[in-house]
Amino acid sequence: MSTQSAAPFPQPTDFHVYDTTLRDGSQQEGMRLTVTDKLRIAGYLDELGVDYIEGGWPGANPNDTAFFAAAAAGELSLKNATLTAFGFTRRVGGKAADDPLTAALRDSGAAVACVVAKSHDQHVLRALRTTLAENLAMITDTVTHLVAEGQRVFLDCEHFFDGYRENKAYATEVVRAAMEAGAEVAVLCDTNGGMLPPWVSAVVAEVAESTGARLGIHAHNDSGCAVANTLAAVDAGATHVQGTINGYGERTGNADLVPVVANLELKYGWQLLPAGSLAEATRLSHAIAEVTNVPPSNRQPYVGLSSFTHKAGLHASAIKVDPNLYQHIDPELVGNDMRMLVSDMAGRANIQIKGEELGFDLSDRDLAAKITDTVKEREAAGYTYEGADASFELLLRDELDQLPVFFVARSWRVFTQSITREGDPERELDTEATLQLDAGGSITRVVGEGNGPVNALDHALREALLPVYPVVERFELSDYRVRILDQGHGTDATIRVLIQTTDGMRSWTTVGVGQNVIDASWEALAEAYSYGLLRSGAGQG
Amino acid sequence: MSTQSAAPFPQPTDFHVYDTTLRDGSQQEGMRLTVTDKLRIAGYLDELGVDYIEGGWPGANPNDTAFFAAAAAGELSLKNATLTAFGFTRRVGGKAADDPLTAALRDSGAAVACVVAKSHDQHVLRALRTTLAENLAMITDTVTHLVAEGQRVFLDCEHFFDGYRENKAYATEVVRAAMEAGAEVAVLCDTNGGMLPPWVSAVVAEVAESTGARLGIHAHNDSGCAVANTLAAVDAGATHVQGTINGYGERTGNADLVPVVANLELKYGWQLLPAGSLAEATRLSHAIAEVTNVPPSNRQPYVGLSSFTHKAGLHASAIKVDPNLYQHIDPELVGNDMRMLVSDMAGRANIQIKGEELGFDLSDRDLAAKITDTVKEREAAGYTYEGADASFELLLRDELDQLPVFFVARSWRVFTQSITREGDPERELDTEATLQLDAGGSITRVVGEGNGPVNALDHALREALLPVYPVVERFELSDYRVRILDQGHGTDATIRVLIQTTDGMRSWTTVGVGQNVIDASWEALAEAYSYGLLRSGAGQG
Repeated sequence: MSTQSAAPFPQPTDFHVYDTTLRDGSQQEGMRLTVTDKLRIAGYLDELGVDYIEGGWPGANPNDTAFFAAAAAGELSLKNATLTAFGFTRRVGGKAADDPLTAALRDSGAAVACVVAKSHDQHVLRALRTTLAENLAMITDTVTHLVAEGQRVFLDCEHFFDGYRENKAYATEVVRAAMEAGAEVAVLCDTNGGMLPPWVSAVVAEVAESTGARLGIHAHNDSGCAVANTLAAVDAGATHVQGTINGYGERTGNADLVPVVANLELKYGWQLLPAGSLAEATRLSHAIAEVTNVPPSNRQPYVGLSSFTHKAGLHASAIKVDPNLYQHIDPELVGNDMRMLVSDMAGRANIQIKGEELGFDLSDRDLAAKITDTVKEREAAGYTYEGADASFELLLRDELDQLPVFFVARSWRVFTQSITREGDPERELDTEATLQLDAGGSITRVVGEGNGPVNALDHALREALLPVYPVVERFELSDYRVRILDQGHGTDATIRVLIQTTDGMRSWTTVGVGQNVIDASWEALAEAYSYGLLRSGAGQG
Repeated sequence: MSTQSAAPFPQPTDFHVYDTTLRDGSQQEGMRLTVTDKLRIAGYLDELGVDYIEGGWPGANPNDTAFFAAAAAGELSLKNATLTAFGFTRRVGGKAADDPLTAALRDSGAAVACVVAKSHDQHVLRALRTTLAENLAMITDTVTHLVAEGQRVFLDCEHFFDGYRENKAYATEVVRAAMEAGAEVAVLCDTNGGMLPPWVSAVVAEVAESTGARLGIHAHNDSGCAVANTLAAVDAGATHVQGTINGYGERTGNADLVPVVANLELKYGWQLLPAGSLAEATRLSHAIAEVTNVPPSNRQPYVGLSSFTHKAGLHASAIKVDPNLYQHIDPELVGNDMRMLVSDMAGRANIQIKGEELGFDLSDRDLAAKITDTVKEREAAGYTYEGADASFELLLRDELDQLPVFFVARSWRVFTQSITREGDPERELDTEATLQLDAGGSITRVVGEGNGPVNALDHALREALLPVYPVVERFELSDYRVRILDQGHGTDATIRVLIQTTDGMRSWTTVGVGQNVIDASWEALAEAYSYGLLRSGAGQG
């Protein structure tokens, strides 16, 4: 590729890719992750192959505490990454050994503790309201205690760059205190995010020189330079980079980890993730966006839907000559695609691989091309198959004429009503669904009640299917997610519903799309039952 | 401000802020600007105070031709900016004086022509399919002709950085040819967007040294470094920066002009825009987003809704001490605001700050504590106020007995039905809402149709309110988001709905929670209208 460059210097022998999506990323406005969300995201991050996953702040809030308990109980099994717990230095005037939050960190089950300490003198004096000496003692005490208890420790130096500008000696002392107490890495944090690359490299180089410490970088995007600031720190000797998937985070967000890693792998020629993992980046970035329910930006570097999309007429014919004249990297290297159609899975090769995974022979090029066209067409209409494996298999089987028809809905109707009577503080809220279903050769008419329209439809469908397919008793809807696709139109917009269903052994996800949330939900619901019946072997008779 | 730095070097005596939103920015996937849109955006850009507005490519498409005609006819009156027309060098083998596109450029009425030329040898040979010498002749001929005809000329050197890596001598020759023919600036373009800051500064410094030309920079964000690459070029001597508002553009977009300029003004201490203009940046960025109809990112550097927003409880009390300890610049400098999020992660201090922002006196500790308890209780039930400022204000006013009751719903009912008839491939899908509403002293009963249940309820509510509050005509639902809160229960789960509404001037967000998606949507919808009526002064009568 013409834009590739030789590495400015060789890859360091030990380099950490450290993800803080579950901690700092979750500080983003509007983001609220459940324990289940965090477990799913951690699984995706592990698949991407990051070295460290910062799971949260145990002891500080019940959600994070529950996440570490679930991980320790075996609900999270990591192949590549090391789970890390975040926490503060012990309280002012206390002892680390007696500090409940230090205990929560120590007992979190995480092999690594990432301890954040103040390194800006004004923050120590005015926000923490203690002496500069006590802050250093807090660092020494906390790190020493955790290391003695068998935990590896990284130290996040909060507000380091601003602090270094105000009081170079004190900020440097914080790094020294941490390293002397046994911390492995001192992570220099641009907490307020206002730095620019030349300032970051100058400070990192100076601190590396004056302390000899192993340094890391934690950047925020307030000046629009988080990725560049991270690279500038690496150029100056940092060997630990912190960031979040999709650049999630408070204010303008953290350094977006995918472009950081992709730049280092594809432009420096380093190998940081397990071989082949970077090519999963687009899929995993989008899968995580499905969990956070934050619509991804189409313009996101490397993984955005538009990031290798060409519109300019003057490029169109030249792209045919050689696409590499018009793209900075081969998009396949990050699992993205040059075509402009709305497709995450895009290309035929992906569909073939996916089909083979599911046990279908798609080696026929015409057949694979036909299915690819169908997928693209449906993705352009708003369907997503990235997060909806079950709907993808149903689509594939439908195209291959291998999909049994388990039931056909002749009609359904749902109504919800709310009545407030004068003088009566209790409001009446009712929902009812009626369904006429053709299953097993006869037509059934059922009525379902529920606390919501989809719940009522679910009850009705279940009741109608039960006599014919008793296995549906085991099906349970475990997740229901709605996203508006084209914003700017309010309730007129296209709506996508994802439903996750479990039979107690495994779970599967289906998708429905429409302008009507109930109709889109019905589509996903019907596919959820069809797929469950298919898996249970109900179609074999 | 503690993070401000002295300029690394003094401000150059002549410096161009060059906006290409109307040309390169409009290449963004999904963006279609009418002539009216372009005139409005040009007005906003002029208000921001950029030096040059590239209006489009006259002669290349009817829309751009019409824009220049409208501007020339007096429909655009610019106070600060100079209108610029974009175009290619003359055709291979032709003469600039006879070239229809060169004529369109010359006759556009724009004082400056920005001519794009190939500077990468492979693009000349393989895409343009001509000789390296002919490409140089095309540059010389086109620039000479336009200058002789009285136009100022800037030369965009397409694919310059990639080309320089492949054939340094040829790329340099392109710059020299342009300058010798009378171009004022040679703009080095990272057309594919794959550069990193140190590479950009090295090339700009070398070319400045070897040619003595005045250089500009045109960066794209494919490696996530467009802003930093632009600053790197400036550090190396470029005195002309190109970019777009909100970073619009093909693929990952162009360099976002606001952070580029804000970094140079606020961190280098330069003065590039007319005095006071930078403080309009947030408003103008959002106003332009209204015209393009591309939802702005809340995380956008400097101008994003979340860009000076704090959530973490551990910051809240310290922010009271000194907000500048927690922000890289004073948000007023770019017309943005510091916001505190109301969240279960924070306590009374947050609520007090938030209440004061809204103009309520919450200094009474008991009152603040009572309101904090209500907020916590409702957040525990699933409400979120960090994303729903309007609902927070309604709650606050309700607690303070300062909330007028604009309407009361006696009852509402929504039904959706789907009917599939045998032999008929068309499915029938209907939705209807009925509403009995007490507003302005009388009870109205209305029926609304819609393509979904919430849309139907919205139509019914609007129709019922319109005779009493004509202002609702202006309210438009601009976003609708649904989130399931407690997973593991499927359609039984608690559902949270966030609705964003706009009256064309500003937008507000409301929240509804319930097990029934329609009921939760109704709650958010009713609050959206109540808040809109409150803002419009409808309760003052």
